[in-house]
Parts: sequence; C-alpha cells; structure tokens
Amino acid sequence: MIQKSPTLAKLIKELQQVPYVASKNLYRVVHYVLKSDVTKIDILCKALLDAKQNIEPCALCFAWKERGQGCVQCDNPDRNKSLICVVETWYDMLSIEKTGGYKGLYHILGGALCPLEGIGPQELTIKELMQRVDRSVTEIILATNQTPEGEATAMFIANRLKQSSVSVTSLARGIPVGSSLEYMDRLTLYKALSERRTF
Amino acid sequence: MIQKSPTLAKLIKELQQVPYVASKNLYRVVHYVLKSDVTKIDILCKALLDAKQNIEPCALCFAWKERGQGCVQCDNPDRNKSLICVVETWYDMLSIEKTGGYKGLYHILGGALCPLEGIGPQELTIKELMQRVDRSVTEIILATNQTPEGEATAMFIANRLKQSSVSVTSLARGIPVGSSLEYMDRLTLYKALSERRTF
Repeated sequence: MIQKSPTLAKLIKELQQVPYVASKNLYRVVHYVLKSDVTKIDILCKALLDAKQNIEPCALCFAWKERGQGCVQCDNPDRNKSLICVVETWYDMLSIEKTGGYKGLYHILGGALCPLEGIGPQELTIKELMQRVDRSVTEIILATNQTPEGEATAMFIANRLKQSSVSVTSLARGIPVGSSLEYMDRLTLYKALSERRTF
Repeated sequence: MIQKSPTLAKLIKELQQVPYVASKNLYRVVHYVLKSDVTKIDILCKALLDAKQNIEPCALCFAWKERGQGCVQCDNPDRNKSLICVVETWYDMLSIEKTGGYKGLYHILGGALCPLEGIGPQELTIKELMQRVDRSVTEIILATNQTPEGEATAMFIANRLKQSSVSVTSLARGIPVGSSLEYMDRLTLYKALSERRTF
C-alpha cells in the first residue's frame, strides 16, 4: 500500500539510508515528519544543508569544525600539543572529551582496518597521522575500539611507529567502574588480572 | 566543544527533536550527515519537503495518502466496507496490513486516551469514528494497544457504541505464536486460559 504513494515511497527510501532511522523505527520517523508542522521540517532541512555547507573536517586531526574557523582542539593554546590520542571516529572523540580528563590533541582515523569491507590503510588517515609525528610529539595514545578491527588497527599503527622515538600507549583494559566480577566475561577478567596494578 | 560551532549546534538541536534519532544515536546520525555527499542530503531534504506538501490524511480513516488521490483502503472497491478496524496509529495499521489477513477498512484514532498528558476524546478522531458508524457498518474491531491507555480507549469507544446496532469486537488475547508457556507472564497466561477456545 506504500507503493501506491510515490511521494511516501520516496521519503521512505531516503530515510532508510540514514543509520538508526532504518529498521523498526522507520515508520515512526515517517509519521513524525508527516505530522509535524511544515515550518519545523523546513528548519530541519535548512539545518541539514547549512551543516553540509559550513562544516568541514580539520585538515590536521579530521574532527568536524566550522568552515573558516580554527579547530577547537588543534588551535587551542591550552592543549598539550605533545600528546595525540588516536580514535576511530568523531563520536569516539566526543566520548573522551566528555570525561574532561584529557587535554592533548586528537587524530581521527575515520574507521578501522577491515580488509573484508575493503578498508585498508589508504582508506584511513594513517598517512596523515605519520606526518604529524615529529619531534614535538612525545606520546601517541591508541584509543581504537576493543574489537578485532580496532585492535588490528592499533597494532598496525604501533608497528609503523616502531622506528620513531615517540612512546606508544593504549587505553587500560579491565573491569568497568561499578561492575561486579560475577558478570564479567572471562577475557576481560583475564586482562584485568594480568594487567593488575599496585594498589 | 560542540557549542563553539553554531552550525553544528543548530543541526544537533533540530535532529534532537526527531524521535529515535535523539539519545545515543544522535552523534552517529550527525556524523552520517556530515560525511555524506551534499547531493544525497539535498535529495533527503527534497523528499522531506515533498512529503510535507503531497501527503495528507484521508478525511475518512485518517491514514496518510497522496494529495488529490484516493485513499488506498477507503476508495478500494475490493475492501469490505461493513468492517472498520480501529487502531491508535498509522504504523499500527501498517502492521495489520502486513498480515494480509484483513480486507475491511480502518480508522486511525491518532493516539490513545491519556488524561495525564492532556489527551482526551476531543484530541482523538472518536467523533469522526461515530459519524462513520451507520447502517452499512456491521462490525467495529477495536485493535488499540494492550496498554492501560489503549484499553481505556477501547472501553470508551465500546461504551459510546452501546446504543448502536453494530457489533463490537476486540483482538484475541493469548499466547503469541512460537512462545513457550514457561516464559509467559501470569496475566497473559490467565487471559489465554479464561478465553480458551474449542480445539
């Protein structure tokens, strides 16, 4: 019955391509759009197109920034420029920023190595990361995800940095704050045990 | 750091109002928009605005339909016009349509009674439903959700229909197909038992 309305079919087709809107929630989002005031949808579309026009990746760290303005991290004099935290995505960076506990710079890879999906080193910003590593940088923190792809990417970058004098670190692995040992998986508990620290 | 980019802050504010995009997935959707080709976002916006312009609710059943065209259900001569299935929302109707087992008409209430949220009979299309119930209608199927609000709405409509000669039915309650008794909640099992049928 959706097929009988070409406008509706088109809207559904376009919304289906937006991640997290697809699947179960799709028809609820469609219903929200149809029910909303037309000015509201106008404003939403304006915001979408404005963002496409005025937001660009930083040429250094690849975080999103306002076109023509400096990068919030790279151009901040209060940031420690000798530290670079390497993350897979922009939202991983936001998660680290929310902790408020990191004052260095970032480098956004744009994903993780995944040969099966055709994502090799060329598809990520690894070359650009290597160009950033000069004498002013003392530490690279590899903060990729704890997935097979993320760990392989960290390994790959660590290997490439072996020749340089920079120290390479990774996030601590162990028991999340607030968790019971009982509900931890074996591997996490094993890592927490083998990487134990002085109390 | 988001606050420093007004364009980004605006996009996030607008997207936050779309249901199911808010919360955890918000930054992933923002990232998708920024990463996508500008023509792709153009097409998405066009589809959104086209839908606002060309889709309207059917004056009879309140399902969404193409402006200027007939309603897929109400204007279909193959549909049984003596049966009206009353549902809360458009996507509830789509769920019933997917079963392929119903060939009558629908009536979309636009929600369920909820005094705490200020939704009374006036906010729903109950008055319009009453106007549809004439001698040609023989059965009203109340297919509101099995929530306190949905059940109260069904009760309210059934009361209003008491005077008329139409027969009022509701969906069968019981064990979902494929479920084990062991994992059923007490109330469902009780209903299934008390509304048991001849094998």
